[in-house]
Amino acid sequence: MVKPGSLPFDEILYCNIGNPQSLGQQPITFFREVLSLCDHPSILDKSETQGLFSADAIERAWQILDQIPGRATGAYSHSQGIKGLRDTIAAGIEARDGFPADPNDIFLTDGASPAVHMMMQLLIRSEKDGILCPIPQYPLYSASIDLHGGTLVPYYLNEATGWGLEVSSLKKQLEAAKSQGITVRALVVINPGNPTGQVLGEENQREIVEFCRKEGLVLLADEVYQENVYVPEKTFHSFKKVSRSMGYGEADICLVSFQSVSKGFYGECGKRGGYMEITGFSPEVREQIYKVASVNLCSNISGQILASLVMSPPKVGDESYESYCGEKEGILSSLARRAKTLEDALNNLEGVSCNKAEGAMYLFPRIELPQKAIKAAEAVNSAPDAFYCRRLLNETGIVVVPGSGFGQVPGTWHFRCTILPQEDKIPAVVSRLTDFHKRFMDEFRD
Amino acid sequence: MVKPGSLPFDEILYCNIGNPQSLGQQPITFFREVLSLCDHPSILDKSETQGLFSADAIERAWQILDQIPGRATGAYSHSQGIKGLRDTIAAGIEARDGFPADPNDIFLTDGASPAVHMMMQLLIRSEKDGILCPIPQYPLYSASIDLHGGTLVPYYLNEATGWGLEVSSLKKQLEAAKSQGITVRALVVINPGNPTGQVLGEENQREIVEFCRKEGLVLLADEVYQENVYVPEKTFHSFKKVSRSMGYGEADICLVSFQSVSKGFYGECGKRGGYMEITGFSPEVREQIYKVASVNLCSNISGQILASLVMSPPKVGDESYESYCGEKEGILSSLARRAKTLEDALNNLEGVSCNKAEGAMYLFPRIELPQKAIKAAEAVNSAPDAFYCRRLLNETGIVVVPGSGFGQVPGTWHFRCTILPQEDKIPAVVSRLTDFHKRFMDEFRD
Repeated sequence: MVKPGSLPFDEILYCNIGNPQSLGQQPITFFREVLSLCDHPSILDKSETQGLFSADAIERAWQILDQIPGRATGAYSHSQGIKGLRDTIAAGIEARDGFPADPNDIFLTDGASPAVHMMMQLLIRSEKDGILCPIPQYPLYSASIDLHGGTLVPYYLNEATGWGLEVSSLKKQLEAAKSQGITVRALVVINPGNPTGQVLGEENQREIVEFCRKEGLVLLADEVYQENVYVPEKTFHSFKKVSRSMGYGEADICLVSFQSVSKGFYGECGKRGGYMEITGFSPEVREQIYKVASVNLCSNISGQILASLVMSPPKVGDESYESYCGEKEGILSSLARRAKTLEDALNNLEGVSCNKAEGAMYLFPRIELPQKAIKAAEAVNSAPDAFYCRRLLNETGIVVVPGSGFGQVPGTWHFRCTILPQEDKIPAVVSRLTDFHKRFMDEFRD
Repeated sequence: MVKPGSLPFDEILYCNIGNPQSLGQQPITFFREVLSLCDHPSILDKSETQGLFSADAIERAWQILDQIPGRATGAYSHSQGIKGLRDTIAAGIEARDGFPADPNDIFLTDGASPAVHMMMQLLIRSEKDGILCPIPQYPLYSASIDLHGGTLVPYYLNEATGWGLEVSSLKKQLEAAKSQGITVRALVVINPGNPTGQVLGEENQREIVEFCRKEGLVLLADEVYQENVYVPEKTFHSFKKVSRSMGYGEADICLVSFQSVSKGFYGECGKRGGYMEITGFSPEVREQIYKVASVNLCSNISGQILASLVMSPPKVGDESYESYCGEKEGILSSLARRAKTLEDALNNLEGVSCNKAEGAMYLFPRIELPQKAIKAAEAVNSAPDAFYCRRLLNETGIVVVPGSGFGQVPGTWHFRCTILPQEDKIPAVVSRLTDFHKRFMDEFRD
């Protein structure tokens, strides 16, 4: 145990994990009302319930129960998830994209992670199978490729162009992998980016689709931050919408889109809900995907319900509509302000440069570490970025993740900092970080 | 689509899956009250809530929320699960076994299946690693061993001694595997049995523990049916209790016990809750287990809460205690009656013999199929038991699973039949099955 008063700070400021509700973000009321009612349907027709829950939440709970065979929220569902909920999600995707979506293409999962594992399990036959992955990347991908015995084929995002994804780099890495006898089977794209926070432009997405189509790669689109865009000049476009708007259909490209209830403005990480939408696969392959999904029976029903709710929130005229919009806008506009404040603060630090947080929940600033600091890190057997982050934690209580956890261009140093501390804590993050950085540079400046 | 009225039955009778609530079993009220309140904590201090929820459910919800950092039921938890809930589960295990349990040994999971996968992933390095598995077995094990690239080393349960588990057979199979260059790393025991419904005797369990200890095998104990015992002469004993009562501790044997909220009398399959308790592993191995658990961040919080509730139900004096006991006894005694009725009916059929359903949710009768039926099956490229089951379905609407899905002694034929149809449907199952079997035998009798 640490002795009280022995540390130079009075609270830990967690900027390390994309876990908003752990830092005080409140859940969206309508979503929780519906979940609560579906968990205990016998209160639905009691008079007290009207006083406790909004009318549209009660109505939605009835609708959902009617979609569940026998209204049994405690039963295993179809291994792809409850059909009625998949209908709702497909309708939500259609409304988002303006292109048709098929409920039979939806697989509901316990968050996006198991869906990613499922696809890796199916794509990777041996270490001779490669998956193109961005660097820096959310380490779920490297872990999953490792666990399934495949080879990660890296492509670097270009920090100088705001973490741009360059198709020339994809091509180069694909050829290099081929020359080593690796069969590249899929491309992972995280948009909006984790840990890098960029939002891809539509023209760039078209190039990526064209590349995957030509090379016969499965496009694994991590789109879990689709609701998290903070700059007016950028919009989220799903890869399915982009490929369909290019005239490409089922026969042209294999696409998987991952979505999660853990992110967005709802941040329901603990509910473990999510889905993947798969298109372009042959019936034989789809059957194998279904077989793997069915080994674990089904994903949790509350998570399934929540996935349907995030894709089909209250509408104009519903009792909850205004409060829902208020909660949503409150969270998103606050996240946008926090992103901007932290970005500016980081760019004000000596030797630090930080791309715009266009989306997601993260900033990934680059630090030019003095040679003296790099040597001091070596002396304690630490990576220089980990050395910086540990000093930051010990002196300020701010927790961030060293860039080496995500991968970075060799010789460059970064850390990932979430934008998730509640807004009243942001000034403390900024001032403690600024003071620390100044002291650090004073100590180690070459 | 089937034309209405074109089939010789008016409803399908599902006896194929252990999914009680899909067949009308009602959830335990107390459990659902607590889940509902934890999903929407803002109603906890409203006056209407007192009229809708029992006082001890409200109290328990407060207790659980206080165990969750920031009361955030929407946040990722520790990758082993919320510490306070693991404390509760450990206390429940202690109360069950009379031996200490450590919350740090508990890993909360989305049902038992992901826990089984996790252990297989860690145990299996290549096809040279073998796992001893019962035949017949719940096919999760064969699927998981396959998916992780290992070798299933089968041992047959002895149908003649009520699906007895004979250590001599374990030894024989272990030696046979060794002689083929297979390193056997673990033994799977399902107790109570699936699909076989037997409950192991304590003396038998001691022999199994001794065998694993001597051979250095990890004992993977599937104990998800621990609450499902229907005969007075048998009692469930956990393998941990048995090994501790033999004087064996952490240093002597590696044990994993799987538990699930899907089974028991609660049957909350859709909630995907469960845990594994691991003992006897070195700190280095535990660290790897933790690492694999953390790849998927955490299991769903509602499932975690439910896992704590099933291990810590209402107690004497609690407002819900009597109704809870009533619901529990109602379900368990009805399951016992259904098991007995179906067992007797099956044993009354020509050429069918069925061991006692001592526990779990299944009967696994053996059918002596006439040669003529076997030839008729061959003529349509069907396994004989699958041929029988398909005929049964087509003529009666009763769905059972052919024994070939679980494995059986070559040349013997079985099917698995759950005891889960609601009690008012059991007479229909019995009479339709009996009539069908008579017609089938009249058609095919040699």
